Amino acid sequence: MKRIFTAALAAALLAGAPAMAADWPAGQMVVSGADITSAWAGADHFTGRVRMESLFPAAGDFQAYGARVTFEPGARTHWHIHPAGQVLIVTDGAGYTKEWGRPAVRLRPGDVVRCPPGVKHWHGAGPKTAMTHIAISEIGSAPVAWLEPVKDSGYPKD
Amino acid sequence: MKRIFTAALAAALLAGAPAMAADWPAGQMVVSGADITSAWAGADHFTGRVRMESLFPAAGDFQAYGARVTFEPGARTHWHIHPAGQVLIVTDGAGYTKEWGRPAVRLRPGDVVRCPPGVKHWHGAGPKTAMTHIAISEIGSAPVAWLEPVKDSGYPKD
Repeated sequence: MKRIFTAALAAALLAGAPAMAADWPAGQMVVSGADITSAWAGADHFTGRVRMESLFPAAGDFQAYGARVTFEPGARTHWHIHPAGQVLIVTDGAGYTKEWGRPAVRLRPGDVVRCPPGVKHWHGAGPKTAMTHIAISEIGSAPVAWLEPVKDSGYPKD
Repeated sequence: MKRIFTAALAAALLAGAPAMAADWPAGQMVVSGADITSAWAGADHFTGRVRMESLFPAAGDFQAYGARVTFEPGARTHWHIHPAGQVLIVTDGAGYTKEWGRPAVRLRPGDVVRCPPGVKHWHGAGPKTAMTHIAISEIGSAPVAWLEPVKDSGYPKD
């Protein structure tokens, strides 16, 4: 068993590109931890300060890949659509997710968000509270479709 | 957006059966939380007391499904093999994973374990410490191959 981590996919994740399937480590388990590095998201697809750690890449026939994302207070994704769907597992803090045309929903640790393919939405921190979630995505034929920023006028006030 | 949760797959997960792909909720996000129910694992594939919550099922083309698993002190899986691989994200406590023929590796919150297809291994609590992890699996043609229990003589002493 190796305690190393294969190359982080944070750059591809942040750019909204589909993650490429790497191979599984050859015939043995890999445990990562203190070697999982953080990256700051740029302003292309996010408002505010957003930090991301790539937790695991897709590998072989295993199509899922995962990242931990921390939104500082006021930070949120732009509106976007996942062509293959996405699952969020909230681990810390408090925040929101909002689907186009529906009210924002508060999120707390332990909450699980299932976003079907094609649904326009955003997720992020509260205006005064940071939020961290794990995001489980799948590689697919199309990358995330990034849309316009979430305006302050449409972002929760508390 | 709905704050309900579709039927838990805990029974299938605990039995080692491949999870069936449900459909995505029709055209809207689903947030689950306080409605995620717990189930106790039986003794067929686990030693000791193990609790599990199904977090999300596979859906449509999204092949990943997730569960949170808590091992009380001394509890562990039997030896087993994942035909499609598995990823564990440790969230609480302290425990171990061990690959056949290699030393046991301590696990702490934040650790991520990637287990390639075909590798015989176990994971669980420490003898005096509980451990909780999220397990990300994928539906596939073959279910988990469950093998013999982990003997006390081969389980860590501290």
